Amino acid sequence: MQITVLKETDPTESRVALVPESVKKLVAMQASVAIESGAGLAASINDADYAAVGATISTDRSALLAGTDVLLAVNRPADEDLAKLKSGAVVTAFLRPLDEPEKLKPMLERGLTAFAIELIPRSTRAQSMDGLSSMATIVGYKAVLMAAERMPRMFPMLTTAAGTVPPARVLVLGAGVAGLQAIATARRLGAIVEGFDVRAAAGEAVRSLGAKFLEVDLGGLQTEDAGGYAREVTEEVMQRSRELIAKQAKQTDCIITSAQVPGAASSSQPAYAVPVIWFTVTANE
Amino acid sequence: MQITVLKETDPTESRVALVPESVKKLVAMQASVAIESGAGLAASINDADYAAVGATISTDRSALLAGTDVLLAVNRPADEDLAKLKSGAVVTAFLRPLDEPEKLKPMLERGLTAFAIELIPRSTRAQSMDGLSSMATIVGYKAVLMAAERMPRMFPMLTTAAGTVPPARVLVLGAGVAGLQAIATARRLGAIVEGFDVRAAAGEAVRSLGAKFLEVDLGGLQTEDAGGYAREVTEEVMQRSRELIAKQAKQTDCIITSAQVPGAASSSQPAYAVPVIWFTVTANE
Repeated sequence: MQITVLKETDPTESRVALVPESVKKLVAMQASVAIESGAGLAASINDADYAAVGATISTDRSALLAGTDVLLAVNRPADEDLAKLKSGAVVTAFLRPLDEPEKLKPMLERGLTAFAIELIPRSTRAQSMDGLSSMATIVGYKAVLMAAERMPRMFPMLTTAAGTVPPARVLVLGAGVAGLQAIATARRLGAIVEGFDVRAAAGEAVRSLGAKFLEVDLGGLQTEDAGGYAREVTEEVMQRSRELIAKQAKQTDCIITSAQVPGAASSSQPAYAVPVIWFTVTANE
Repeated sequence: MQITVLKETDPTESRVALVPESVKKLVAMQASVAIESGAGLAASINDADYAAVGATISTDRSALLAGTDVLLAVNRPADEDLAKLKSGAVVTAFLRPLDEPEKLKPMLERGLTAFAIELIPRSTRAQSMDGLSSMATIVGYKAVLMAAERMPRMFPMLTTAAGTVPPARVLVLGAGVAGLQAIATARRLGAIVEGFDVRAAAGEAVRSLGAKFLEVDLGGLQTEDAGGYAREVTEEVMQRSRELIAKQAKQTDCIITSAQVPGAASSSQPAYAVPVIWFTVTANE
């Protein structure tokens, strides 16, 4: 069985679908792993790193695709690549099935079997394949680093002979995996953190990280689906949330948003939470 | 008495010598404070913020200088600005007196009184004016943020269903104010941190922050001057240090350097510690 990893075509993509550690495991299971030359470069992995664990390296993308039984990718491969796969081949990637279902039709028509990473259930059994949580964790961590580097003040409180610098105040909207990781990271750096989520159940997690939970009065409305994701909420809840956030935003230095409702957004929403960071520049406080 | 703050001329400089909070105190003491328009912009402070606390705003740099009794600046003002000050005026800034003493001659010749912030002793009485420590604190904090944002791995250890990501290993060279702040910040973010300093006395501070102290065998050599700064050390100590660091560098993901020996360096050394960050890119570990 040939498992293939291509170089991702999006120039802003620095991930690769397989790292050498995983290649080693697949090779040990008698799979043959074929890597397009340069596939790992953006992730700091050389062709030689792959070759060292038993992968075949090739520069011939078309030949790679023609021989592929399982194509592993980060993003949905381009139609011209999919057209070169044999019928019955398997494709695994963040396929955006809920956001762009029509884009998957060519795969159906060509008789490919497709696994969308984002639809792997977050059940105990499937946890080790939970790509959304892994990505959300990195997103939440990175969002805080980006915010801290760009903010005109430091996150931790400093008490020095020259005076005391108060800690930064950070407001995190959305307390899913990304939001909680953002809260944890901002707390680690010493900020005063507040977390908001329409799901009241998120309060305990937010508070356990040492942050304050901003609670909106939902009047008994259900805001979480059976899978634990946030539902799209009613206009009334939205309005109450907006008022609460607007009030809190006035006393915060930085707002990090991380909410994501699967399938609800336009095609511009990526397959995992991408943070939007807002700063309040207050020089005198 | 007119206290003047000009817009800094270095385009990469985002600091300003007085913030509105300090202006307020000076105005309350009957000083008249004159700010060049736009002086605070890079530090997110508007002219209006200064005007609100009683400062005069002016766009006429020459007139400002002619009326100045005390000129407060971050960096040493340009000779053409100093030439417009009246004899007897006072200038306070990071003047680089040890690195570029000849550049201060024009000030002497014009009968100006100059205070170099970096020569204010780190004594108890002068602590509240200790600009070097303030800057070094920010430098150490920021160095870690820059490193964390650019590194191809996360600082904290993550234990998830998909596996465990080990914490990053950070080596900080120099355990003065900047180095200790870098150690503290890297530790906060969850990294495994090692600190190195030629001053054996720094070991306690390094260890108190939860980092390991790399100790070089000095054989009784004195490496700290009376002011607590690192002395330039002998070639033998340098060699032993290099060997220790080279050995340690092999197992580290990131090296942050922060050492500074006052007056010892070329004119390219700034008046406060600027970190050099080295990364070791290791994709498979």
